[in-house]
Amino acid sequence: MTRKDEAKRRKTAAHARPTDALSGPAPAGADEHEVDEAMPETQPWSRVAIERLSPRIDGGRFPIKRIAGDPVTVDAAIVADGHELVSAVVLHRRAEDEAWTELPMEPLGDDRFQAEFRVGEPGRHHYTVVGWVDRFRSWARDLGKRLDAHQDVSVELLIGVALIEAAAERASGADHDSLAAAAAMLRSGGPALARAALDPGLAALMVRHGDRPFATRHQPDLEIVVDRERARFSAWYELFPRSAALEPGRHGTFRDVEARLPAIAAMGFDVLYLPPIHPIGRVNRKGPNNNPDAQPGDPGSPWAIGSVEGGHKAVHPELGTLDDLRHLRDAAEAAGLELALDIAFQCAPDHPYAAEHPEWFRLRPDGTIQYAENPPKRYQDIYPFDFETPAWRELWAELRSVVRFWAEQGIRIFRVDNPHTKPFDFWEWLIADVKRDYPEAIFLAEAFTRPKVMYRLAKLGFSQSYNYFPWRNTKAELTGYLTELTTTEVREFFGPSLWPNTPDILPEYLQFGGPPAFMARAVLAATLGPSYGLYGPAFEQCVAEPLAPGREEYLDSEKYEVRHWDWDAEGSLSELLARLNAIRRDNAAFRANHALTFHPVTNPELIAYSKASPDGANQVLVVVNLDPHHVQSGFVELPLDELGLDGTRSYQVHDVLNDARYLWNGSRNYVELGPKHHQANVFVIRRWARSERDFDYYL
Amino acid sequence: MTRKDEAKRRKTAAHARPTDALSGPAPAGADEHEVDEAMPETQPWSRVAIERLSPRIDGGRFPIKRIAGDPVTVDAAIVADGHELVSAVVLHRRAEDEAWTELPMEPLGDDRFQAEFRVGEPGRHHYTVVGWVDRFRSWARDLGKRLDAHQDVSVELLIGVALIEAAAERASGADHDSLAAAAAMLRSGGPALARAALDPGLAALMVRHGDRPFATRHQPDLEIVVDRERARFSAWYELFPRSAALEPGRHGTFRDVEARLPAIAAMGFDVLYLPPIHPIGRVNRKGPNNNPDAQPGDPGSPWAIGSVEGGHKAVHPELGTLDDLRHLRDAAEAAGLELALDIAFQCAPDHPYAAEHPEWFRLRPDGTIQYAENPPKRYQDIYPFDFETPAWRELWAELRSVVRFWAEQGIRIFRVDNPHTKPFDFWEWLIADVKRDYPEAIFLAEAFTRPKVMYRLAKLGFSQSYNYFPWRNTKAELTGYLTELTTTEVREFFGPSLWPNTPDILPEYLQFGGPPAFMARAVLAATLGPSYGLYGPAFEQCVAEPLAPGREEYLDSEKYEVRHWDWDAEGSLSELLARLNAIRRDNAAFRANHALTFHPVTNPELIAYSKASPDGANQVLVVVNLDPHHVQSGFVELPLDELGLDGTRSYQVHDVLNDARYLWNGSRNYVELGPKHHQANVFVIRRWARSERDFDYYL
Repeated sequence: MTRKDEAKRRKTAAHARPTDALSGPAPAGADEHEVDEAMPETQPWSRVAIERLSPRIDGGRFPIKRIAGDPVTVDAAIVADGHELVSAVVLHRRAEDEAWTELPMEPLGDDRFQAEFRVGEPGRHHYTVVGWVDRFRSWARDLGKRLDAHQDVSVELLIGVALIEAAAERASGADHDSLAAAAAMLRSGGPALARAALDPGLAALMVRHGDRPFATRHQPDLEIVVDRERARFSAWYELFPRSAALEPGRHGTFRDVEARLPAIAAMGFDVLYLPPIHPIGRVNRKGPNNNPDAQPGDPGSPWAIGSVEGGHKAVHPELGTLDDLRHLRDAAEAAGLELALDIAFQCAPDHPYAAEHPEWFRLRPDGTIQYAENPPKRYQDIYPFDFETPAWRELWAELRSVVRFWAEQGIRIFRVDNPHTKPFDFWEWLIADVKRDYPEAIFLAEAFTRPKVMYRLAKLGFSQSYNYFPWRNTKAELTGYLTELTTTEVREFFGPSLWPNTPDILPEYLQFGGPPAFMARAVLAATLGPSYGLYGPAFEQCVAEPLAPGREEYLDSEKYEVRHWDWDAEGSLSELLARLNAIRRDNAAFRANHALTFHPVTNPELIAYSKASPDGANQVLVVVNLDPHHVQSGFVELPLDELGLDGTRSYQVHDVLNDARYLWNGSRNYVELGPKHHQANVFVIRRWARSERDFDYYL
Repeated sequence: MTRKDEAKRRKTAAHARPTDALSGPAPAGADEHEVDEAMPETQPWSRVAIERLSPRIDGGRFPIKRIAGDPVTVDAAIVADGHELVSAVVLHRRAEDEAWTELPMEPLGDDRFQAEFRVGEPGRHHYTVVGWVDRFRSWARDLGKRLDAHQDVSVELLIGVALIEAAAERASGADHDSLAAAAAMLRSGGPALARAALDPGLAALMVRHGDRPFATRHQPDLEIVVDRERARFSAWYELFPRSAALEPGRHGTFRDVEARLPAIAAMGFDVLYLPPIHPIGRVNRKGPNNNPDAQPGDPGSPWAIGSVEGGHKAVHPELGTLDDLRHLRDAAEAAGLELALDIAFQCAPDHPYAAEHPEWFRLRPDGTIQYAENPPKRYQDIYPFDFETPAWRELWAELRSVVRFWAEQGIRIFRVDNPHTKPFDFWEWLIADVKRDYPEAIFLAEAFTRPKVMYRLAKLGFSQSYNYFPWRNTKAELTGYLTELTTTEVREFFGPSLWPNTPDILPEYLQFGGPPAFMARAVLAATLGPSYGLYGPAFEQCVAEPLAPGREEYLDSEKYEVRHWDWDAEGSLSELLARLNAIRRDNAAFRANHALTFHPVTNPELIAYSKASPDGANQVLVVVNLDPHHVQSGFVELPLDELGLDGTRSYQVHDVLNDARYLWNGSRNYVELGPKHHQANVFVIRRWARSERDFDYYL
């Protein structure tokens, strides 16, 4: 049944009159009312209602999200009038043109039913539920009761035989033969052989071929966007190619970035994200530190896209050529790194679009193109697109062609700049369209905006989302926010990517905390969620100087100038990052998004949380000192029962970050962390396995 | 936008390609994909999303319920891309052909908006929400910021003037003139007069006439079933007319019932419910105590409907005529009682339908009509209808005509027997259809079945529902169940009617507790919810003998025989019931369904709960001793702050059931209740008003 049919059916059920389609003489009262809409000829109504189907986002308005191989546990309340038994199946399929796979649902009691299937390869999958009053099962149940009560079942038996014969008609091959044989046997054998009708083999055949009259199918069909694992589990490294030159003073190139790949790969990251790589506008170009008057030679902001050299499908000549980019992509892949590009749908005034398609921008009454504003602030180096232009179809199609262009160059990960300033419907359409041909595409939303807008964008199709993590620094803030992200319905659609810094954000905590603050934030980002990212090398080198006191922007930001980084600088956090990323890879608990639990610590500066792999085999416990200035100590309180630990025995916590092992006892254990020591513990919990002579073994 | 259009729009937004409708040359990539569906020509997409709209049941699938005059507080999250301001209105109307009333929604922050309206007369009302990006408000906000920053606003002013001019075009009369004047003034006055554009009067005009581009309207329109107050607040009295004769041994009549009206009215009930009044089948008639072999003269069960004298539209000759019934209806009304009839859609074997419409029943393979069963039990005096018959249209229409027939006799309240054994779709259609012509009709569902089925029936249209109250007797049971009914989403659709007994149910608590048990249950039923009912006079006279030990049915039930009741019997609870019903009428707190709060008592046999009227002016506190055998005492713990009581002063609790007044202090106060004393207190809480010399006054 299509959604349209369903709408019609509902309307009919609620308002239409059955007499409208009466073929014989109308009964009393039949013509008292206006005719609304003829009722369908067959099965116009159903006896079964499907309620509370889960998983489902906003009643099925949005697809749920899964990673290839993930389970989908479908749960629904399926209720029917009367006393007959209800049967139900989940239908699921990988693509619109595939046949449905049918999976029987198990009754859980209280009218609830459940079934689980696993999703296959990335793409858009579908599922729904069908429920019906099962005449054969109901009949068989009642037959058993009648036989137990020693009643004459000769007439009842004929009812069941008719059901089996009808099923035999529908079946073919061996199933047909078995059903026909069962019917014949029961018909001729009569009540003496009646118990044969309760045979489980016959029951299974009848579920497959039995009638499903007045069935209800959940409308609409529900969708699943299946992504590859990197959509959930990833470690991003952001790098400005302009600053990648080996020697100071030179504008970096893609080739220079290639030279950095071994160092980045050694730190264990798996996504290398480059800010926009397109030609940079010259009109109203910004100078260092966002100075409105650029000097000749100032490189400008890479987000001011487009110049005479080209627009969103061109490469900034100073970085190299399209071929160089493809070469970098391949070199990165060889190093275990996947390249991510920036999608920033906005233009410099000298972007070719501005001249070729002024109708894609908003015109001011004086005939000039409207520049970006946040009154009273003006950003005259940027022209936003007018998504409401009468020529929106051409504009949208062109923007889609930008994403498709880079997809054709082998790019599959896109960090989208400010998606919240473009229409929701645009993103829903664009992402679905691109992923139809590139199901492995991943979109990261950079929408630092109001919570409901962030969440809406995630529902619309973004796999990953920036979020408020940069400004969640205290124990209460972190606990509250991560609990919202990982234990409420938000977890069904929102894939947080935790970034301690970005080129736009140097949080106060990092400005004043020194290296211990960077260490704490790196551990938190890498272990609180399966996806995180860093803006480096500013992060490794603990760059902390803001544009001005009270501002959370970087001084001398790479956004506006070429910087030079000493990749071998003293005090770099590269070793810590390498260790964190290795720990993430080695411990399945860090790949999951759902199983985060915070634990009490007696010191408010210490935060403790545990995660477990879906099979429970890998359990980790992280403790971080949030105070970058002092040593802090306290007792961590663990729920031993929930963790499956035996309170009467000691257990081992292995700090894989600092390679130390501790024997803990009971639920309360002491920790001490601080600047002169370690800023965090990342424990793998090992249960006591067996004792052999004087050795203890832990698994 | 219709539901169909909405389905199309969604599909379009998710899957269609904007290039499909391109008029110019197709941009790159435009023809890579199959064409799905052309996009609409105008406003095919919206910038605004409406989320979490409440109240709404199952996403709008079912109407919400209100009583005439009730408020509807509409709350929604309305989010848009970008930084512009969103405006929203609630649209509501009383009937499908009425014009919509538009009500601006107030922003509450965090993208939430709210508005409240009150529903009018009984009938089906409608509401929805429209949200849009408000260009004028956004422009005015920005203009203010620009002026504050002393920027040149000459160009910006022209943008706003154009918006005002466009609104003037749409407006007529005085609004047109005002808008045109404002536009002219701003256009000629220029920046010097720009602040005039921020005038609130102009803002109000612009909300009415401003453009609403890319608006979103919540789909579908939502419905409200508005009932009269009796649908929520009612006290039912069930009476078998057959037993109403003044003298023993005679079959009672409607005229005899008329003679009972003063006594029933004196007890304060407002609904008089009669079991089925139709001719009773003779074939397979049941004798006393459900004996399958009736003797000549046995009257049979009134639920075995139909005989040669007629069916569901006929009156049992021994009760009187249709005229007698109408006379009773009028006499009841004059006494302040409304007559409720029973709708039991099933037939005795000799019901005229069985001969005239065998196609409305299920045939067994031996050609006989299928009787009712609960295997291995057989009910051969009852033929259930086959709602799935190919002739279902005729059957459904005929059953509807039964309800309409009694509605035409002036009956507006229907107690529906076993609705859960008939299709959900049937009830949804029938109730909506009948209430279209009789919006004051009230349907009570007698569905003692699984919770989700009971709740579904309530959503489908039943105003009131029997429920598990008869079997909720302990403090924990009552607290848990009533909390579910009054504080969860259930309260939005389920109107519980609390019955301590019915002709089918004599709970064990009443069998063993004697009159104190009846007193306790009467107080609980009358005060825990706004609707309750009793099967009398068996209740007033504390009839407690079951059919057999362990059975919860009455011995010598009126269902199968004529009984005679002495209405002036010693020990009748009629005075208690009269007092309870008077208290219910006098205290608005008892009319509301939502404001029930249980309070701790130090004794598990004592239960305490309070209710308040919507305006808070009337506060009541009920304490019941659930132990019918012993005196019980304890301390009631009241949340003084929540009740608005001053903990530093004493307050008065006036026991209006037993006419006693107590001065209480603080949150803990002593109560003592028991068989030799009172079984319950019904306190009206009176706050200290003023002290004048040595008198205290309480309001």
